[in-house]
Amino acid sequence: MEVGFPGLTTMRDSVQVTFEPVGIIIRVPAGITIYEAAQRAGVGIEAPCGGQGTCGKCRVLVTDGVAADPDAQEQELLTPEELAHGTRLACRAQVLEDVVVRVEATQALAAGKNLEQGRLRAVALDPDVRRYDLQLPTPTLQDQRSDFRRIADAVSDTQADLTASVGALGGLASALRGAQQQLSVITAGAELVEVRPASARGRCLGVAVDIGTSTVATYLVDLETGAQLATAAAGNPQAQFGADVISRIEYSNSNPGGLRELRAKAVEVINELMQQAVAQAGADCHDVYEVTVVGNTCMHHLFLGLEPRYLAQSPYVPVTTEPLSLGAAEVGLDIHPRGKVFCLPCIAGFVGADTVGVILASELTRRTQPVLAVDIGTNGELALWSGERLLTASCAAGPAFEGAQIEHGMRAAPGAIDHVSAVDGNLVVHTIGDQPARGICGSGLFDAMAVVLEVGLVDKTGRIVNGEVSLQLPGNLAERLQGEGPRRQIVLADSSQAANGPVTFTQRDIRELQLAKSAIRASAEMLLDHVGLSPDDLEEIQIAGAFGNFIDPASALRMGLLPDVPADRISAIGNAAGAGAILALLSRAEREYSRHIAQVAEHIELFRSAEFQTRFAEYMMFE
Amino acid sequence: MEVGFPGLTTMRDSVQVTFEPVGIIIRVPAGITIYEAAQRAGVGIEAPCGGQGTCGKCRVLVTDGVAADPDAQEQELLTPEELAHGTRLACRAQVLEDVVVRVEATQALAAGKNLEQGRLRAVALDPDVRRYDLQLPTPTLQDQRSDFRRIADAVSDTQADLTASVGALGGLASALRGAQQQLSVITAGAELVEVRPASARGRCLGVAVDIGTSTVATYLVDLETGAQLATAAAGNPQAQFGADVISRIEYSNSNPGGLRELRAKAVEVINELMQQAVAQAGADCHDVYEVTVVGNTCMHHLFLGLEPRYLAQSPYVPVTTEPLSLGAAEVGLDIHPRGKVFCLPCIAGFVGADTVGVILASELTRRTQPVLAVDIGTNGELALWSGERLLTASCAAGPAFEGAQIEHGMRAAPGAIDHVSAVDGNLVVHTIGDQPARGICGSGLFDAMAVVLEVGLVDKTGRIVNGEVSLQLPGNLAERLQGEGPRRQIVLADSSQAANGPVTFTQRDIRELQLAKSAIRASAEMLLDHVGLSPDDLEEIQIAGAFGNFIDPASALRMGLLPDVPADRISAIGNAAGAGAILALLSRAEREYSRHIAQVAEHIELFRSAEFQTRFAEYMMFE
Repeated sequence: MEVGFPGLTTMRDSVQVTFEPVGIIIRVPAGITIYEAAQRAGVGIEAPCGGQGTCGKCRVLVTDGVAADPDAQEQELLTPEELAHGTRLACRAQVLEDVVVRVEATQALAAGKNLEQGRLRAVALDPDVRRYDLQLPTPTLQDQRSDFRRIADAVSDTQADLTASVGALGGLASALRGAQQQLSVITAGAELVEVRPASARGRCLGVAVDIGTSTVATYLVDLETGAQLATAAAGNPQAQFGADVISRIEYSNSNPGGLRELRAKAVEVINELMQQAVAQAGADCHDVYEVTVVGNTCMHHLFLGLEPRYLAQSPYVPVTTEPLSLGAAEVGLDIHPRGKVFCLPCIAGFVGADTVGVILASELTRRTQPVLAVDIGTNGELALWSGERLLTASCAAGPAFEGAQIEHGMRAAPGAIDHVSAVDGNLVVHTIGDQPARGICGSGLFDAMAVVLEVGLVDKTGRIVNGEVSLQLPGNLAERLQGEGPRRQIVLADSSQAANGPVTFTQRDIRELQLAKSAIRASAEMLLDHVGLSPDDLEEIQIAGAFGNFIDPASALRMGLLPDVPADRISAIGNAAGAGAILALLSRAEREYSRHIAQVAEHIELFRSAEFQTRFAEYMMFE
Repeated sequence: MEVGFPGLTTMRDSVQVTFEPVGIIIRVPAGITIYEAAQRAGVGIEAPCGGQGTCGKCRVLVTDGVAADPDAQEQELLTPEELAHGTRLACRAQVLEDVVVRVEATQALAAGKNLEQGRLRAVALDPDVRRYDLQLPTPTLQDQRSDFRRIADAVSDTQADLTASVGALGGLASALRGAQQQLSVITAGAELVEVRPASARGRCLGVAVDIGTSTVATYLVDLETGAQLATAAAGNPQAQFGADVISRIEYSNSNPGGLRELRAKAVEVINELMQQAVAQAGADCHDVYEVTVVGNTCMHHLFLGLEPRYLAQSPYVPVTTEPLSLGAAEVGLDIHPRGKVFCLPCIAGFVGADTVGVILASELTRRTQPVLAVDIGTNGELALWSGERLLTASCAAGPAFEGAQIEHGMRAAPGAIDHVSAVDGNLVVHTIGDQPARGICGSGLFDAMAVVLEVGLVDKTGRIVNGEVSLQLPGNLAERLQGEGPRRQIVLADSSQAANGPVTFTQRDIRELQLAKSAIRASAEMLLDHVGLSPDDLEEIQIAGAFGNFIDPASALRMGLLPDVPADRISAIGNAAGAGAILALLSRAEREYSRHIAQVAEHIELFRSAEFQTRFAEYMMFE
């Protein structure tokens, strides 16, 4: 597969990068890093540190051609032998000549997992963009209505009185007469967007976009049938400026033009993904007439070029939280030139359009009984529907649940430990694809945490047992303990079970998980208190995010992440944010309902309350 | 006065043209004509043939420097002596080096006359663009409303819920905090357009534009006080592609890119005129937030880049007649980047937004008795209000009334014969500024026609008398007759009274006037018939157009231009089209009413009816 960038192929200083084994070839300007080239090509490479050259997780093998000399970070994190064999850090190694780069399957395939979107509930197809096939009456001296009026009258039975931009009116007269008044007309809301001869009608497509801090996903939909035609996802290339929301805000604050860079990255990756998706469907980008967008408030602001500075400063005020109907050209998206972009509303500085999407998709506010929805990512968002009121809150969970800042953390990909259980008093691990262990993904972490507590390797304060206590453990468990103090760790998979040395679960990993789970748990309990509910009153706890599909509810409960409910009341709803964006694309009623959700939501600011600090400390304990 | 074009002053191949005596200096690309340079500089030069080099009326004197060698047309129309002294045709002579060009005052001042706009009636100031001076509450943890919401809530008492483009939201956060929440906010309709610190509030201005086939006029208005700050006008530079509507449509039809050229000319001259007007008012173009536009349907289409082709072909269907609310950027006007353009609606292919402006300004449809409004120009437009119904019609009057196609026709400027009367059986002429006669302007033509009929120099068929009849004329009148057949003419001012040889009124001139008056008269009578009215029923006949201010109602009646009413029922209402554009700028109610006018108007297509042909032939007679 050749991913061509027409503007670049004739550049004098461009070089060709071939990614193996996926077989993607791309031409890029000489001097960019392998990581950047991979981003452009849509090849997923894990780089939890955001391309700072500190985590060492973006190793790739240059099998043909030579990259620029390794810098200090590469020399520190890679051995001379590795460098000699062509192993490089993708985020540091610059391409100066044509190269072939081998990307581990675990990395190249990672993006695929994130495509799993939430279960899409059925809605009546009623998109804002519609096509009309018209046969207009020929003008006469008795019927001198203008070309535009003729069209407006023909579609007026279903639409408010039509408007049009100069662009749409420009070629109208010739188009009408060339087609003997047989037309295919596209409207977006009350605006005439395109007029074509019936014989050249093209398709009528839409794209839903979920801009995640780590991953950007696009879903291509046929607006006339509701069919999902293709999906495409890639790492968020803003990661090179910072792995999380806060570091990107800081980048924007401290670099002139930084906001513009961040915006351009988001727009660029969405354009590339849309290009991939329409190519898969054998369509053209000009057939796309509308894009709906969800993302957390920071991603929303960065995508639109709105200053994110005050999101991160108390009192955490966004520039705007309104639903926005914008022109594609104004936003920079390469769809039909008069196409539209609808950004779902946000709720607060840290509760964004992604949460609105989750609430929309899960029909939270249409339930009769209390339900809690939790979206676990770098940032945790919670929405509690009491049956009458909708409360939202956010908490900084840290990237622990996504595998970053975890010693052997990785995404859910072949070789990742995804399940851990205790069998006959010993730990048994399962890896994705039954391959030798390479690391541990989110669901594996949850299980590991639950199991190490269960078998007594970790005490209720979160400390890996030591001294007296560890001596009382059965031998097979005691053997898993290594190191002392902050370096103490538990071996989950030893060298015989692993691909590149043992996979361990460290004291620091446990502390990270502890902070994250305690933040989410304290937030959830405070929301319940706020409306006088107890966990027992909850009919359901929904876990959103691709991640939620893989976790064991029992493990989540055992580690104390969630309020205490029976395990069968916990359900994973997948990438419900993306599903919400698709619903807003397919149905005007759903879109209108997203506005309603944002309006009725009561956001509770927990960060600064003394009560939260007390609860947070309390839920640090595993009990 | 230096009119600078920043982008041009550093061009290697630019030359400087100084226009005397007005003292305007401009740098232009070498190779353009003096006429084009004058257009760019806002210096009016008459060129009725549209720069085709056929009418010879755009004579100028190059007093310093030399223009390119004269072409065949110049050699034909100018004598070797004239050329030797530096007389050139502005439309043909190209500037290749710095030159000083002397433009006759009669020409340089011509544009001034057209500025006379209609009497502006009083309206309650209620523009679509408004400014709010706000002191917003500082955000707190208890009040986390977004920046935008805070503004929207502050203005919501008077506006529908606000929207905003990405552009307006871009710098919002910093602007707010930099100004300690003390803001000057501009809205256009329900859209937030600009947010500035209160200390940098600037002005809030609007511009009304009247795009005439011959002249483009702009009126700068303060939207906070309603005061008219400045006006600026210039010849319509599209004239170089054709003097009238039909020849411009033909140019657009037969030249690829012709429509784009015509559009660019209109946009360019409006931008230049606005620049002049804001400079006069000591303001900045970015202080202009809205432009309202009137013009005939062809000017409207050309300004917006809409194909004019079908306006000129039966059944004369426009691309659109709707009122259009557009972005200034989309149209190409250099005002505030998020400023708006409102184009008043048109009624039919030959009854445009200028007529809607006339009806709006004259309050035609608010009268209780029947009134007829006639706008006389190259094209004649008529609007009849019956007291209940509004009928419109148009007719091709030809450019006769504007002095083109008239042997000695010229604009109303010093030296123009503007009044002719019969005193003691002889003809007495009056010239503007009591200067030696140079030609005859519209009002002079009307008088001349009436008087030559009255004294018997012309018979009721429109023929200049001859043979027997002429022999019976008093000697002083008979002496005025020269030539035979189609070359027969009446001397209005002989060499002793004139600047450059006798000014005559020719048989062909009379035929042109006859065709024009008969078309207008037949149209007016047919509209009256259509609603069962007679001329007696008319409470008033309004003559619109700058031209109307100068004609003698008695002459217009005597030559048979208008239905037969007492002379005191005829009134001139000036450039009411421009006044309508100003009203739409000042008042949302007036703007809304313009939409109403276009909706209720019943356009009657007269051109093709047999009845019209009969009437037309009938009114050719002067009786």
